[in-house]
Amino acid sequence: MKELKSIADLTFAFSKFPSVGNKTAERMAYAVLNMDKDDINFLIESISNAASKIHQCPICGLLTEDEICSVCKDSNRDHSQCIVLAHSKDVGLFESMNYKGIYHVLNGEISSYHGITPDKLRIKELLQRIEEENIKEIIIATNPNVEGDTTALYLAKILENTNVKVSRIGFGLPVGGNLDYADSLTIKRSFDNRTNYKKEDK
Amino acid sequence: MKELKSIADLTFAFSKFPSVGNKTAERMAYAVLNMDKDDINFLIESISNAASKIHQCPICGLLTEDEICSVCKDSNRDHSQCIVLAHSKDVGLFESMNYKGIYHVLNGEISSYHGITPDKLRIKELLQRIEEENIKEIIIATNPNVEGDTTALYLAKILENTNVKVSRIGFGLPVGGNLDYADSLTIKRSFDNRTNYKKEDK
Repeated sequence: MKELKSIADLTFAFSKFPSVGNKTAERMAYAVLNMDKDDINFLIESISNAASKIHQCPICGLLTEDEICSVCKDSNRDHSQCIVLAHSKDVGLFESMNYKGIYHVLNGEISSYHGITPDKLRIKELLQRIEEENIKEIIIATNPNVEGDTTALYLAKILENTNVKVSRIGFGLPVGGNLDYADSLTIKRSFDNRTNYKKEDK
Repeated sequence: MKELKSIADLTFAFSKFPSVGNKTAERMAYAVLNMDKDDINFLIESISNAASKIHQCPICGLLTEDEICSVCKDSNRDHSQCIVLAHSKDVGLFESMNYKGIYHVLNGEISSYHGITPDKLRIKELLQRIEEENIKEIIIATNPNVEGDTTALYLAKILENTNVKVSRIGFGLPVGGNLDYADSLTIKRSFDNRTNYKKEDK
Protein backbone atom coordinates (compact mmCIF):
# COMPACT_ATOMS: atom_id res chain seq x y z
CA MET A 1 0.00 0.00 0.00
CA LYS A 2 1.27 3.46 -0.90
CA GLU A 3 2.22 5.68 2.01
CA LEU A 4 0.24 8.90 2.45
CA LYS A 5 2.91 11.55 1.91
CA SER A 6 0.91 14.45 3.33
CA ILE A 7 0.20 12.51 6.55
CA ALA A 8 3.84 11.47 6.86
CA ASP A 9 4.97 15.07 6.27
CA LEU A 10 2.51 16.47 8.79
CA THR A 11 3.43 13.83 11.40
CA PHE A 12 7.08 14.77 10.91
CA ALA A 13 6.30 18.49 11.26
CA PHE A 14 4.29 17.96 14.46
CA SER A 15 6.88 15.61 15.97
CA LYS A 16 9.38 18.51 16.04
CA PHE A 17 7.36 20.24 18.76
CA PRO A 18 8.42 19.89 22.40
CA SER A 19 6.59 17.19 24.37
CA VAL A 20 5.10 15.73 21.18
CA GLY A 21 6.25 12.18 20.43
CA ASN A 22 5.76 10.25 17.19
CA LYS A 23 2.48 8.64 18.26
CA THR A 24 0.96 11.95 19.36
CA ALA A 25 2.21 13.63 16.18
CA GLU A 26 0.49 10.96 14.08
CA ARG A 27 -2.73 11.29 16.07
CA MET A 28 -2.59 15.05 15.54
CA ALA A 29 -1.99 14.63 11.80
CA TYR A 30 -5.08 12.42 11.47
CA ALA A 31 -7.04 14.93 13.57
CA VAL A 32 -6.38 17.56 10.89
CA LEU A 33 -8.33 15.40 8.42
CA ASN A 34 -11.39 15.59 10.65
CA MET A 35 -11.25 19.36 11.18
CA ASP A 36 -13.60 21.62 9.27
CA LYS A 37 -12.27 24.24 6.86
CA ASP A 38 -12.67 27.13 9.32
CA ASP A 39 -10.66 25.42 12.05
CA ILE A 40 -7.86 24.60 9.60
CA ASN A 41 -7.73 28.16 8.32
CA PHE A 42 -7.67 29.45 11.91
CA LEU A 43 -4.80 27.08 12.75
CA ILE A 44 -2.76 28.09 9.69
CA GLU A 45 -3.40 31.80 10.24
CA SER A 46 -2.47 31.56 13.93
CA ILE A 47 0.83 29.88 13.05
CA SER A 48 1.73 32.43 10.42
CA ASN A 49 0.57 35.35 12.61
CA ALA A 50 2.60 34.16 15.58
CA ALA A 51 5.64 33.70 13.36
CA SER A 52 5.36 37.05 11.59
CA LYS A 53 3.85 39.46 14.14
CA ILE A 54 5.66 38.53 17.34
CA HIS A 55 9.15 39.84 18.00
CA GLN A 56 11.20 40.94 20.98
CA CYS A 57 10.78 44.42 22.41
CA PRO A 58 14.00 46.29 21.47
CA ILE A 59 14.24 47.72 25.01
CA CYS A 60 13.49 44.88 27.43
CA GLY A 61 13.34 41.79 25.21
CA LEU A 62 9.78 40.75 26.11
CA LEU A 63 7.79 39.24 23.24
CA THR A 64 5.38 41.75 21.76
CA GLU A 65 3.19 42.41 18.74
CA ASP A 66 3.80 46.18 18.95
CA GLU A 67 6.92 48.15 18.19
CA ILE A 68 7.66 48.67 21.90
CA CYS A 69 6.11 46.28 24.45
CA SER A 70 3.19 47.37 26.64
CA VAL A 71 5.30 47.18 29.83
CA CYS A 72 8.02 49.55 28.57
CA LYS A 73 5.38 51.94 27.19
CA ASP A 74 3.36 52.04 30.43
CA SER A 75 4.27 55.18 32.41
CA ASN A 76 2.13 54.03 35.34
CA ARG A 77 4.58 51.22 36.06
CA ASP A 78 7.59 51.65 38.32
CA HIS A 79 10.53 52.00 35.92
CA SER A 80 13.07 51.95 38.75
CA GLN A 81 12.45 48.29 39.65
CA CYS A 82 13.47 45.68 37.07
CA ILE A 83 13.07 41.90 37.14
CA VAL A 84 15.67 40.00 35.08
CA LEU A 85 14.17 36.96 33.36
CA ALA A 86 15.82 34.12 31.47
CA HIS A 87 12.95 33.83 28.99
CA SER A 88 10.12 36.12 27.94
CA LYS A 89 7.50 33.49 28.73
CA ASP A 90 8.40 33.59 32.45
CA VAL A 91 6.79 37.05 32.58
CA GLY A 92 3.31 35.60 33.20
CA LEU A 93 4.25 34.40 36.68
CA PHE A 94 5.15 37.90 37.82
CA GLU A 95 2.32 39.65 35.99
CA SER A 96 -0.14 37.35 37.75
CA MET A 97 1.20 38.42 41.18
CA ASN A 98 0.49 42.02 40.12
CA TYR A 99 4.12 43.17 39.84
CA LYS A 100 4.23 46.81 38.75
CA GLY A 101 7.88 47.26 37.77
CA ILE A 102 9.61 46.55 34.44
CA TYR A 103 11.56 43.59 33.02
CA HIS A 104 14.74 42.62 31.24
CA VAL A 105 14.96 39.36 29.28
CA LEU A 106 18.35 37.61 29.00
CA ASN A 107 17.29 35.09 26.31
CA GLY A 108 18.70 32.14 28.21
CA GLU A 109 20.99 31.17 31.07
CA ILE A 110 24.71 30.52 31.21
CA SER A 111 25.31 26.84 30.44
CA SER A 112 28.63 25.26 29.61
CA TYR A 113 26.78 22.07 28.63
CA HIS A 114 24.74 23.88 25.96
CA GLY A 115 27.61 26.22 25.07
CA ILE A 116 25.80 29.33 26.25
CA THR A 117 28.43 31.83 27.35
CA PRO A 118 27.61 35.21 28.99
CA ASP A 119 28.26 37.09 25.74
CA LYS A 120 25.35 35.22 24.11
CA LEU A 121 22.90 36.64 26.64
CA ARG A 122 21.44 40.16 26.72
CA ILE A 123 23.75 41.25 29.58
CA LYS A 124 25.43 44.11 27.70
CA GLU A 125 21.96 45.50 27.01
CA LEU A 126 21.13 45.29 30.73
CA LEU A 127 24.29 47.24 31.68
CA GLN A 128 23.45 49.83 29.08
CA ARG A 129 19.91 50.20 30.43
CA ILE A 130 21.23 50.65 33.98
CA GLU A 131 23.48 53.40 32.68
CA GLU A 132 20.83 55.18 30.61
CA GLU A 133 17.59 54.52 32.47
CA ASN A 134 16.58 55.24 36.03
CA ILE A 135 16.82 51.63 37.28
CA LYS A 136 17.47 51.47 41.04
CA GLU A 137 16.76 47.81 41.79
CA ILE A 138 17.47 44.60 39.89
CA ILE A 139 15.65 41.43 40.97
CA ILE A 140 17.17 38.35 39.35
CA ALA A 141 14.53 35.72 38.60
CA THR A 142 16.51 33.00 36.83
CA ASN A 143 15.59 29.36 37.44
CA PRO A 144 16.42 27.54 40.70
CA ASN A 145 18.90 25.18 39.00
CA VAL A 146 22.61 25.08 38.08
CA GLU A 147 22.26 27.32 35.01
CA GLY A 148 20.01 29.80 36.81
CA ASP A 149 22.34 29.91 39.85
CA THR A 150 25.40 30.45 37.65
CA THR A 151 23.69 33.24 35.76
CA ALA A 152 22.51 34.92 38.96
CA LEU A 153 26.01 34.79 40.51
CA TYR A 154 27.55 36.11 37.29
CA LEU A 155 25.12 39.05 37.20
CA ALA A 156 25.60 39.78 40.90
CA LYS A 157 29.37 39.91 40.35
CA ILE A 158 29.07 42.19 37.31
CA LEU A 159 26.61 44.54 39.03
CA GLU A 160 28.67 44.73 42.24
CA ASN A 161 30.21 48.09 41.40
CA THR A 162 27.04 49.82 40.24
CA ASN A 163 24.72 51.85 42.45
CA VAL A 164 21.88 49.45 41.78
CA LYS A 165 20.41 47.28 44.53
CA VAL A 166 20.64 43.63 43.39
CA SER A 167 18.66 40.70 44.77
CA ARG A 168 17.43 37.31 43.71
CA ILE A 169 13.92 35.98 44.27
CA GLY A 170 13.67 33.92 47.45
CA PHE A 171 13.78 30.15 47.65
CA GLY A 172 12.01 27.92 50.08
CA LEU A 173 9.08 25.62 50.50
CA PRO A 174 6.37 26.04 47.91
CA VAL A 175 3.16 27.48 49.36
CA GLY A 176 0.66 24.70 50.03
CA GLY A 177 3.48 22.17 49.99
CA ASN A 178 4.18 19.54 52.60
CA LEU A 179 7.48 19.03 54.44
CA ASP A 180 7.22 15.27 53.77
CA TYR A 181 7.65 15.84 50.06
CA ALA A 182 10.35 18.51 50.11
CA ASP A 183 13.81 17.48 48.89
CA SER A 184 16.87 18.22 51.00
CA LEU A 185 18.16 21.01 48.74
CA THR A 186 14.89 22.90 49.01
CA ILE A 187 14.95 22.41 52.79
CA LYS A 188 18.50 23.74 52.90
CA ARG A 189 17.56 26.79 50.83
CA SER A 190 14.45 27.29 52.90
CA PHE A 191 16.59 27.21 56.07
CA ASP A 192 19.13 29.69 54.67
CA ASN A 193 16.29 31.91 53.53
CA ARG A 194 14.46 31.90 56.88
CA THR A 195 12.45 34.95 57.92
CA ASN A 196 12.76 36.39 61.40
CA TYR A 197 9.54 37.20 63.18
CA LYS A 198 11.08 39.79 65.52
CA LYS A 199 12.02 42.75 63.37
CA GLU A 200 15.09 43.69 65.40
CA ASP A 201 16.67 40.25 64.87
CA LYS A 202 16.64 40.62 61.11
CA MET B 1 0.64 43.88 30.41
CA LYS B 2 -1.14 43.37 27.10
CA GLU B 3 -1.85 39.75 26.19
CA LEU B 4 -0.19 38.42 23.03
CA LYS B 5 -3.19 37.69 20.82
CA SER B 6 -1.32 35.56 18.28
CA ILE B 7 0.09 33.35 21.05
CA ALA B 8 -3.32 33.04 22.70
CA ASP B 9 -4.92 32.18 19.33
CA LEU B 10 -2.27 29.60 18.49
CA THR B 11 -2.47 28.04 21.96
CA PHE B 12 -6.23 27.75 21.51
CA ALA B 13 -5.82 26.19 18.05
CA PHE B 14 -3.29 23.62 19.29
CA SER B 15 -5.36 22.78 22.38
CA LYS B 16 -8.11 21.43 20.11
CA PHE B 17 -5.90 18.49 19.09
CA PRO B 18 -6.33 15.12 20.80
CA SER B 19 -3.93 14.44 23.70
CA VAL B 20 -2.80 18.09 23.75
CA GLY B 21 -3.67 19.92 26.96
CA ASN B 22 -3.48 23.67 27.60
CA LYS B 23 0.08 23.59 28.97
CA THR B 24 1.39 21.56 26.01
CA ALA B 25 -0.51 23.79 23.57
CA GLU B 26 1.14 26.87 25.09
CA ARG B 27 4.59 25.26 24.95
CA MET B 28 3.95 24.40 21.28
CA ALA B 29 2.83 27.96 20.52
CA TYR B 30 6.06 29.36 21.98
CA ALA B 31 8.04 26.74 20.04
CA VAL B 32 6.67 28.23 16.79
CA LEU B 33 8.45 31.51 17.67
CA ASN B 34 11.78 29.70 17.76
CA MET B 35 11.31 27.85 14.46
CA ASP B 36 13.06 29.10 11.36
CA LYS B 37 11.08 30.27 8.31
CA ASP B 38 11.55 27.00 6.39
CA ASP B 39 10.18 24.85 9.22
CA ILE B 40 7.16 27.12 9.60
CA ASN B 41 6.42 27.03 5.87
CA PHE B 42 6.78 23.23 5.88
CA LEU B 43 4.37 22.98 8.81
CA ILE B 44 1.78 25.24 7.19
CA GLU B 45 2.08 23.50 3.82
CA SER B 46 1.77 20.05 5.41
CA ILE B 47 -1.42 21.08 7.19
CA SER B 48 -2.99 22.53 4.09
CA ASN B 49 -1.83 19.60 1.92
CA ALA B 50 -3.22 17.03 4.33
CA ALA B 51 -6.50 18.92 4.51
CA SER B 52 -6.87 19.40 0.76
CA LYS B 53 -5.27 16.34 -0.88
CA ILE B 54 -6.42 13.49 1.34
CA HIS B 55 -9.89 12.03 0.90
CA GLN B 56 -11.54 8.63 1.21
CA CYS B 57 -11.27 6.10 -1.60
CA PRO B 58 -14.79 5.95 -3.13
CA ILE B 59 -14.60 2.14 -3.23
CA CYS B 60 -13.18 0.97 0.10
CA GLY B 61 -13.05 4.17 2.18
CA LEU B 62 -9.30 4.10 2.87
CA LEU B 63 -7.64 7.52 3.00
CA THR B 64 -5.81 8.27 -0.22
CA GLU B 65 -4.22 11.08 -2.21
CA ASP B 66 -5.18 9.48 -5.52
CA GLU B 67 -8.60 9.13 -7.10
CA ILE B 68 -8.78 5.40 -6.21
CA CYS B 69 -6.57 4.06 -3.39
CA SER B 70 -3.50 1.97 -4.15
CA VAL B 71 -5.02 -1.15 -2.56
CA CYS B 72 -8.17 -1.14 -4.72
CA LYS B 73 -6.07 -0.42 -7.85
CA ASP B 74 -3.58 -3.25 -7.16
CA SER B 75 -4.52 -6.29 -9.24
CA ASN B 76 -1.80 -8.36 -7.53
CA ARG B 77 -3.78 -8.31 -4.30
CA ASP B 78 -6.42 -10.88 -3.43
CA HIS B 79 -9.71 -9.09 -4.11
CA SER B 80 -11.75 -11.99 -2.71
CA GLN B 81 -10.60 -11.45 0.88
CA CYS B 82 -11.73 -8.25 2.61
CA ILE B 83 -10.88 -6.92 6.06
CA VAL B 84 -13.55 -4.63 7.54
CA LEU B 85 -12.02 -1.76 9.55
CA ALA B 86 -13.63 0.82 11.81
CA HIS B 87 -11.17 3.54 10.77
CA SER B 88 -8.82 4.01 7.85
CA LYS B 89 -5.82 4.52 10.15
CA ASP B 90 -6.15 0.93 11.45
CA VAL B 91 -4.92 -0.25 8.03
CA GLY B 92 -1.27 0.08 9.03
CA LEU B 93 -1.49 -2.83 11.48
CA PHE B 94 -2.57 -5.25 8.74
CA GLU B 95 -0.27 -3.86 6.05
CA SER B 96 2.68 -4.40 8.38
CA MET B 97 1.80 -8.11 8.77
CA ASN B 98 1.91 -8.34 4.96
CA TYR B 99 -1.81 -8.91 4.38
CA LYS B 100 -2.53 -9.20 0.65
CA GLY B 101 -6.30 -8.83 0.48
CA ILE B 102 -8.44 -5.70 0.29
CA TYR B 103 -10.24 -3.52 2.87
CA HIS B 104 -13.54 -1.88 3.67
CA VAL B 105 -13.70 1.07 6.08
CA LEU B 106 -16.88 1.59 8.12
CA ASN B 107 -16.00 5.09 9.40
CA GLY B 108 -16.78 4.22 12.99
CA GLU B 109 -18.43 1.67 15.23
CA ILE B 110 -22.00 1.34 16.47
CA SER B 111 -22.29 3.30 19.72
CA SER B 112 -25.52 4.27 21.42
CA TYR B 113 -23.53 6.53 23.75
CA HIS B 114 -22.16 8.59 20.84
CA GLY B 115 -25.36 8.29 18.83
CA ILE B 116 -23.72 6.26 16.05
CA THR B 117 -26.41 4.05 14.55
CA PRO B 118 -25.69 1.40 11.84
CA ASP B 119 -27.08 3.68 9.10
CA LYS B 120 -24.29 6.19 9.82
CA LEU B 121 -21.63 3.59 8.96
CA ARG B 122 -20.58 2.43 5.49
CA ILE B 123 -22.49 -0.85 5.84
CA LYS B 124 -24.77 -0.31 2.82
CA GLU B 125 -21.63 0.20 0.74
CA LEU B 126 -20.20 -3.08 2.05
CA LEU B 127 -23.35 -5.01 1.09
CA GLN B 128 -23.25 -3.44 -2.36
CA ARG B 129 -19.59 -4.41 -2.79
CA ILE B 130 -20.37 -8.01 -1.80
CA GLU B 131 -23.09 -8.06 -4.43
CA GLU B 132 -21.04 -6.48 -7.21
CA GLU B 133 -17.47 -7.61 -6.48
CA ASN B 134 -15.99 -11.05 -6.10
CA ILE B 135 -15.64 -10.93 -2.30
CA LYS B 136 -15.64 -14.43 -0.78
CA GLU B 137 -14.42 -13.75 2.74
CA ILE B 138 -15.06 -10.93 5.20
CA ILE B 139 -12.76 -10.58 8.21
CA ILE B 140 -14.15 -8.16 10.78
CA ALA B 141 -11.39 -6.23 12.52
CA THR B 142 -13.32 -3.85 14.76
CA ASN B 143 -11.91 -2.99 18.19
CA PRO B 144 -12.00 -5.46 21.12
CA ASN B 145 -14.43 -3.31 23.14
CA VAL B 146 -18.21 -2.84 23.53
CA GLU B 147 -18.61 -0.76 20.36
CA GLY B 148 -16.41 -3.07 18.30
CA ASP B 149 -18.20 -6.18 19.59
CA THR B 150 -21.62 -4.67 18.84
CA THR B 151 -20.56 -3.71 15.32
CA ALA B 152 -19.07 -7.17 14.67
CA LEU B 153 -22.24 -8.94 15.88
CA TYR B 154 -24.42 -6.61 13.80
CA LEU B 155 -22.37 -7.28 10.67
CA ALA B 156 -22.33 -11.04 11.31
CA LYS B 157 -26.15 -11.00 11.60
CA ILE B 158 -26.59 -8.96 8.42
CA LEU B 159 -24.16 -11.11 6.43
CA GLU B 160 -25.70 -14.40 7.68
CA ASN B 161 -27.73 -14.97 4.52
CA THR B 162 -24.99 -14.16 2.03
CA ASN B 163 -22.58 -16.68 0.52
CA VAL B 164 -19.64 -14.88 2.06
CA LYS B 165 -17.51 -16.50 4.76
CA VAL B 166 -17.52 -14.18 7.78
CA SER B 167 -15.04 -14.20 10.66
CA ARG B 168 -13.61 -11.86 13.23
CA ILE B 169 -9.92 -11.51 14.10
CA GLY B 170 -8.95 -13.71 17.05
CA PHE B 171 -8.57 -12.56 20.61
CA GLY B 172 -6.18 -13.82 23.20
CA LEU B 173 -2.95 -13.10 24.95
CA PRO B 174 -0.76 -10.52 23.27
CA VAL B 175 2.43 -12.00 21.86
CA GLY B 176 5.33 -11.36 24.23
CA GLY B 177 2.87 -10.80 27.07
CA ASN B 178 2.95 -12.41 30.46
CA LEU B 179 0.07 -14.31 32.11
CA ASP B 180 0.68 -12.35 35.33
CA TYR B 181 -0.40 -9.13 33.66
CA ALA B 182 -3.36 -10.40 31.64
CA ASP B 183 -6.83 -9.28 32.74
CA SER B 184 -9.58 -11.81 33.29
CA LEU B 185 -11.55 -10.84 30.15
CA THR B 186 -8.52 -11.41 27.95
CA ILE B 187 -7.89 -14.75 29.66
CA LYS B 188 -11.53 -15.72 29.06
CA ARG B 189 -11.31 -14.78 25.39
CA SER B 190 -7.99 -16.52 25.08
CA PHE B 191 -9.55 -19.68 26.59
CA ASP B 192 -12.57 -19.53 24.24
CA ASN B 193 -10.24 -18.95 21.31
CA ARG B 194 -7.91 -21.83 22.13
CA THR B 195 -6.15 -23.68 19.30
CA ASN B 196 -6.10 -27.46 19.18
CA TYR B 197 -2.75 -29.07 18.50
CA LYS B 198 -4.14 -32.32 17.12
CA LYS B 199 -5.82 -31.53 13.83
CA GLU B 200 -8.52 -34.20 14.16
CA ASP B 201 -9.81 -32.62 17.41
CA LYS B 202 -10.52 -29.31 15.79
